[in-house]
Amino acid sequence: MKDQFTYTPIGVLRTAYRSTDEIPKTLGQAPTAEGAIEIDPAFKDGLLDIDRFTHLLVIFAFHRSEGKPLRVYPPGQEKERGVFATRSPHRPNAIGILTVELLSREGTRLNVRGVDVLDGTPVLDIKPYLTHFDSRPEASQGWLPDS
Amino acid sequence: MKDQFTYTPIGVLRTAYRSTDEIPKTLGQAPTAEGAIEIDPAFKDGLLDIDRFTHLLVIFAFHRSEGKPLRVYPPGQEKERGVFATRSPHRPNAIGILTVELLSREGTRLNVRGVDVLDGTPVLDIKPYLTHFDSRPEASQGWLPDS
Repeated sequence: MKDQFTYTPIGVLRTAYRSTDEIPKTLGQAPTAEGAIEIDPAFKDGLLDIDRFTHLLVIFAFHRSEGKPLRVYPPGQEKERGVFATRSPHRPNAIGILTVELLSREGTRLNVRGVDVLDGTPVLDIKPYLTHFDSRPEASQGWLPDS
Repeated sequence: MKDQFTYTPIGVLRTAYRSTDEIPKTLGQAPTAEGAIEIDPAFKDGLLDIDRFTHLLVIFAFHRSEGKPLRVYPPGQEKERGVFATRSPHRPNAIGILTVELLSREGTRLNVRGVDVLDGTPVLDIKPYLTHFDSRPEASQGWLPDS
């Protein structure tokens, strides 16, 4: 088996957030900020029919991630958790995932809602959100406080 | 910005599927097969409290992926789609995502339901599934046929 996997970004996320301090860190709420996914025009053909979906999964690199801690304090929490039980950007493989609403498409620019990441975040992949694969409304909230 | 991102697997998926031919290719249905995520013991501390969640997101490498087509024919379909409008394993960055149900934990082994990937698939990251981030039961099915 290969020891490492290397990926080249296919595009970039455009958001209102220039620094991590500006990103709302709320537990238990979906992000509502609008932004865009700018896909490298070389991949335009790969976007055929993507606008037939209302929601997308975006896989991205936490490019400003520092360190690879195994335990972290989630925002506002007093108890440490294992990093794999959190959505922290600081983790062994700093890959992130966002579920966004696709608002409109302009060529290789996808206007979306639900982005709480830094402007300039490198996008590794986009997939259609499919309810049978991805939607689990019955999932528990784990250690998160009741809202 | 970095041109490439390199990740080292944190573990491996154990499933009943030794070849891609054995994997059920159904549209519109969630996989129900049971399997396990075996995490490298070096990352054990990162699993603290993970068993408080009922569902997990698993980010993995499609390690047998071949080629990087921009258009693909989904299983059983007669119409080509842009690869980013499909869940095909053959894509520019061959990263996959699975939502699984966590059945039980035995140390660094997580027994899960909902795996439709090859035995030995390298795991890049695990995150808790959080309904406010990840569950969108209202999402459209795009080009998928009505079930």
